[in-house]
Amino acid sequence: MKPLTSQKPRVLVMVGLPARGKTFIARKVARYLTWLGISARVFNVGNYRREHLGSRQPAAFFDPDNADGLAARHQMAMAALDDMFAWLQGGGEVAIYDATNAVKKRRDLVTDACRGRGIEPIFIESVCNDPDIVARNIQATKLTMPDYAGVDPDQAVRDFRARIAHYERSYEPVDEPDRSWVKLVDTGERIVLNRIRGYLPSRLVFFLSNLHLDPRPIYLTRHGESAFNVVGRIGGDPGLSPRGKGYSTKLCDWLHTELAGHDDPQVWTSTLQRTRQTVAPLRFETKPLKNLDEIDAGICDGLTYDEIAARWPDDYAARKGDKLRYRYPRGESYQDVIDRLDGVIIELERQRHPVVVVAHQAVLRCLYAYLTDQPRERVPHIAMPLHTLIRLTPATYGTEEQRLTLA
Amino acid sequence: MKPLTSQKPRVLVMVGLPARGKTFIARKVARYLTWLGISARVFNVGNYRREHLGSRQPAAFFDPDNADGLAARHQMAMAALDDMFAWLQGGGEVAIYDATNAVKKRRDLVTDACRGRGIEPIFIESVCNDPDIVARNIQATKLTMPDYAGVDPDQAVRDFRARIAHYERSYEPVDEPDRSWVKLVDTGERIVLNRIRGYLPSRLVFFLSNLHLDPRPIYLTRHGESAFNVVGRIGGDPGLSPRGKGYSTKLCDWLHTELAGHDDPQVWTSTLQRTRQTVAPLRFETKPLKNLDEIDAGICDGLTYDEIAARWPDDYAARKGDKLRYRYPRGESYQDVIDRLDGVIIELERQRHPVVVVAHQAVLRCLYAYLTDQPRERVPHIAMPLHTLIRLTPATYGTEEQRLTLA
Repeated sequence: MKPLTSQKPRVLVMVGLPARGKTFIARKVARYLTWLGISARVFNVGNYRREHLGSRQPAAFFDPDNADGLAARHQMAMAALDDMFAWLQGGGEVAIYDATNAVKKRRDLVTDACRGRGIEPIFIESVCNDPDIVARNIQATKLTMPDYAGVDPDQAVRDFRARIAHYERSYEPVDEPDRSWVKLVDTGERIVLNRIRGYLPSRLVFFLSNLHLDPRPIYLTRHGESAFNVVGRIGGDPGLSPRGKGYSTKLCDWLHTELAGHDDPQVWTSTLQRTRQTVAPLRFETKPLKNLDEIDAGICDGLTYDEIAARWPDDYAARKGDKLRYRYPRGESYQDVIDRLDGVIIELERQRHPVVVVAHQAVLRCLYAYLTDQPRERVPHIAMPLHTLIRLTPATYGTEEQRLTLA
Repeated sequence: MKPLTSQKPRVLVMVGLPARGKTFIARKVARYLTWLGISARVFNVGNYRREHLGSRQPAAFFDPDNADGLAARHQMAMAALDDMFAWLQGGGEVAIYDATNAVKKRRDLVTDACRGRGIEPIFIESVCNDPDIVARNIQATKLTMPDYAGVDPDQAVRDFRARIAHYERSYEPVDEPDRSWVKLVDTGERIVLNRIRGYLPSRLVFFLSNLHLDPRPIYLTRHGESAFNVVGRIGGDPGLSPRGKGYSTKLCDWLHTELAGHDDPQVWTSTLQRTRQTVAPLRFETKPLKNLDEIDAGICDGLTYDEIAARWPDDYAARKGDKLRYRYPRGESYQDVIDRLDGVIIELERQRHPVVVVAHQAVLRCLYAYLTDQPRERVPHIAMPLHTLIRLTPATYGTEEQRLTLA
């Protein structure tokens, strides 16, 4: 469900030592909000530093006793803050201020700047007590950052650890009782919420508490060709055509091989016949979810596009003009589908097992858009052909994709 | 959305000093889960004590140095635990063990008993650092408990505070890093989650984090009579009849008076014409929510019940036989409606302003059932007449109800 109350601008402020996953979290949150239809943007102070001061700063630049470095970094932090407020003033809804914000004094400064504009910021602190998580973070993301392009990896790790050590000397964990904050310890092992109220913040915490970094594939596919596909009708609850049954056999054979050895793969379908028939040969348990049912075409259900154009020419034209927001009379818009898929997205984030989603064109376009970070306006136009299996593997930065035609 | 993974039995264990709202939380959680279709039951050790040992125990009974009292209370705690496991064995899904569980040793005992049955318990600790909240809790709930029936209120408060003092002497807050627990501080001011994983626990925390005890009314009403009501057709998207327009005028006049002085009353409608027309004369902002649309009658939409019986006799009979679970072909069941109202319930819990919900018969039956704690099987049979405003005021124990006919 979309937030019910009219939204004031929000500022989320990341806090944490380097290599604690701040940027990963900031990007995930921005992507999720954007997908829900809320304008969100990350303001990453590191990018300002790299752009304005160059990416090759030695660890000594981050020494808190280095007055020049301190002043330069302060200036970059303020530039990002100014841009952030300008963006909010221009209609932005949720800004995410991504920097270490490692000392109380800096957080006071950000708080005062926000409060001066009538905004109560929410701090999101990422804490890692587990050295393995930090080491994995450094390996997975930091060695590929522009700061270390062309640098010997061992040398880069040493330099980056020296940079962290500089921050550690002055680090003050978030603990202000009168502020709003979320503390994420060891990727969700422990979570502390202080003064988190309201729909959007609660919703975000629910999202954050289900994030994890364990890699696992997500498979998306439409049902096999249906009797309606053959004659060009939309919606309905038809069964599979003979060609569709052929796809079902090939898909299930392929999945049996692909998922062999996984102890508990998840297979989700819609409640409609064509998806359930598609997975019928599978030996795994399958779960029909009403949230995965195809977009409801309302009064146009069961018609061909030619019939819709003839019977409801205004609707046909309106849909052509704005396919994202157009709502079929008595039916749904793409936006409605996105809203009802929110629970599926949270569940996809949470799962540590491979997940196979067998659903429908519009529904899969919405899920795919979230998983691969497509702009909203693209959603109704994403190619989602029949008899094609999409394998997505979410990674820290971006998502790997493979498409397999099993016709 | 319903939990996707097949549910193992769950045990939630309340922790906290007396008058910290443990029983309130336990009951709310049980009510919410029951409404979602999960079998949940509270096992309240205090009730076992009252039943087996009598309700009139002096504060000294709760003195940790009173060996007899300690043994008797231990016995009651074990009896409740045994009954709880028997209930889970018999198919119960979520058991809530409601007792102080104030010392680590007792929590270890409960943990071992659960783990011996393959269940990892989740502790829910309620902490109040704010003495006002404790004082209000004592006033609101403890003076009316059987322990103090007929006792002078001042005397009762003194005795109850002495009882609390006995527990305080030995109280050990939850802090075990290897266990699953939720700590709620000062009704959600701060929340700590430790090792909370999985769909149902995350969902519950989202619910818990939105609970509050501030009293505020919730108003439920159907739209005014529609053109379809007049001719006995279901569903559709008709406008109001002349009689329906009369109700709209009276309702809005009444709400203007009733809600005068409230700075931000919430008025939610469905997206259908008949509810939006009903609130059209209101001077407050109104919000149309698709989740509040009437149950989707699928292929039966727009028909009369006689037509349904004639055209789809099997469906007509199936619906008569099990109105709760019957799903209209291409439409929804009551269970589907409950699932999609979950977000509305969370939002209703969260709101601190009065909320007016103008919706439809089936949708309001589901909301009303949650708010007044009706058994699920009753849901499709709850009386929800046209032109009647229901005012509900949730209180700590139970909900006050008034019905007002504005015909």
